[in-house]
Amino acid sequence: MSAKAYRAAGVDLEAADSIKENIVAFASLTHGPNVLKNGNSFAGLYRLSGYKKPVLISSTDGVGTKLKIASLIGHYESIGVDLVNLNVNDIITCGGKPLFFLDYISVGALDAQIIEPLLRGMAWACRDSGTALIGGETAQAPGMYSSNTFDLAGTIVGVVEESEIIDNTNVANGDLLLGLPSKGLHTNGYSLVRKIFNIDQNPRVLYERFDGLDHSLGEELLKTHRCYYKDLESHYSRIKAIAHISGGGLIDNMPRVLPEGLACVVNLDTWKPSPIFPLIQSIGNIDHSEMYRVFNMGIGMVLIANFRQAALLQKEIPDAIVIGQVIEQKDEKRVVLSRA
Amino acid sequence: MSAKAYRAAGVDLEAADSIKENIVAFASLTHGPNVLKNGNSFAGLYRLSGYKKPVLISSTDGVGTKLKIASLIGHYESIGVDLVNLNVNDIITCGGKPLFFLDYISVGALDAQIIEPLLRGMAWACRDSGTALIGGETAQAPGMYSSNTFDLAGTIVGVVEESEIIDNTNVANGDLLLGLPSKGLHTNGYSLVRKIFNIDQNPRVLYERFDGLDHSLGEELLKTHRCYYKDLESHYSRIKAIAHISGGGLIDNMPRVLPEGLACVVNLDTWKPSPIFPLIQSIGNIDHSEMYRVFNMGIGMVLIANFRQAALLQKEIPDAIVIGQVIEQKDEKRVVLSRA
Repeated sequence: MSAKAYRAAGVDLEAADSIKENIVAFASLTHGPNVLKNGNSFAGLYRLSGYKKPVLISSTDGVGTKLKIASLIGHYESIGVDLVNLNVNDIITCGGKPLFFLDYISVGALDAQIIEPLLRGMAWACRDSGTALIGGETAQAPGMYSSNTFDLAGTIVGVVEESEIIDNTNVANGDLLLGLPSKGLHTNGYSLVRKIFNIDQNPRVLYERFDGLDHSLGEELLKTHRCYYKDLESHYSRIKAIAHISGGGLIDNMPRVLPEGLACVVNLDTWKPSPIFPLIQSIGNIDHSEMYRVFNMGIGMVLIANFRQAALLQKEIPDAIVIGQVIEQKDEKRVVLSRA
Repeated sequence: MSAKAYRAAGVDLEAADSIKENIVAFASLTHGPNVLKNGNSFAGLYRLSGYKKPVLISSTDGVGTKLKIASLIGHYESIGVDLVNLNVNDIITCGGKPLFFLDYISVGALDAQIIEPLLRGMAWACRDSGTALIGGETAQAPGMYSSNTFDLAGTIVGVVEESEIIDNTNVANGDLLLGLPSKGLHTNGYSLVRKIFNIDQNPRVLYERFDGLDHSLGEELLKTHRCYYKDLESHYSRIKAIAHISGGGLIDNMPRVLPEGLACVVNLDTWKPSPIFPLIQSIGNIDHSEMYRVFNMGIGMVLIANFRQAALLQKEIPDAIVIGQVIEQKDEKRVVLSRA
């Protein structure tokens, strides 16, 4: 075996070096004064200052099989944006301020046409939320992925002053639920969507226009995960609890912020899910209740606040909608879906 | 489509819930008083205290295709240990103390027989280094992985006092290189190893015993990534630079901690790589120099210290070996491999 044995085994160290340089360039666009330049490069360094009792908030998540849609269309920027935003949304549920982000990309073979747009998307989203893209790993794993598939995950670290953590301890019977609209499916329900539209076998369906959609199916499905940090950061003190409506929908995510003994009622007539949701439901012949357990159904974030604060929040966040109320729990159900 | 449409599409929400409970149980074994219990569960909360000017240190990495060996043998605990330790080793290069860890597991279908041993291994390793396993994501991505394959990544966050960061600024001509032995291949070079032994096509080779190895090939290849934190934490102040010998071997990793204008000479007669390395070299017919660019060759960590401190370090860390010296850079070469 020649000196290039490792390349023959599918791992290209020189391609890795060249892509790494571009990654570093994108990442540095997101660096403020708190990112320390260090002599070595085994780890990212971030100076934490200005907090009396800092509590670090962290979350790891991936974009799931939305990645497959992106691969089929060959459009990767938006997935990079998704990856950052969905993780940022997880930590703002505690009142966090995002500090830095690390990504993990695992591919069968390095392809700059995929990795660079991904990183560009991540860098855009990081800049938008003031997050430093501080590190990451682009791993070559030959033989683990079929061609054009890869995996992607990210980790966000943020901070909150201990006395200002948003938890659900003050949530009370009668508090209001404020919903913030989603931009589409965000990053959940894609395995089901792929099955319903038979996308894996017939990827051309992604270029079709369905009644009611403004875009082709593919464009609709790649709408980015909205980041709610800028909407909420100056209003944290008014909010008693925040639920990120990700996998599990309203049905599984609302109970995560409801104290024991309390449930909530959600009035489905208070907003209209965008056309992609009824389209999925009708083509897939899916039960109404399962739709609310798999998809966000048009609501990406729910805030819980008392009546007075909810009114102020609605004034400050124009697209917030009162979608329901906290109630006493009567039976097993923590989330009651109702019509007006 | 029935109410179980999502399960039919390959995503099992109830299995996810049951595995999630076990993950939480393993993780809680690693939690000390700094991990805050929060009402919600979208993010992990870690209280940072006791630092005047804290700098957060972070790293993300995966175990690469060592995962394939683990899958073929059906042994997952050790991979969980690897995942934590390799990330911890990255942040201790700056003098960091590990605080918390987040994992990302992406699978085609949830299998408790895989995920639980993985998590058990992670929890063991976290306990050993005083790291809290604070969060993670176990993602079901049907159709993305062939059966029995999955991907795995982890993120470590640690801290260091700003004035105590280990960087390479004081490294000088004449400083000594102290090598700490590895326990085997650690987590690098597996794509090449799989090719050389034709493991993907002939997995039974993993049960063979080769001359010179104490174990079967599979057991040898699954030896865990050694964690160096406990060896080093009380000696940080004596050390000028630390290089984690991971992908790229001594050849690519030493330059990451050498200031401009300096190189190093490594005397290959000062230690003997364990038998797996010459076995790989001879079966694969691999160039000598490439071996040192792909594998750790028996040295998992290199410390740089002046003569006096190196002597003290050798007394305190019994298996540390002087393997070379910092020299002036004469040509392109940053790492000169020599024989006594």
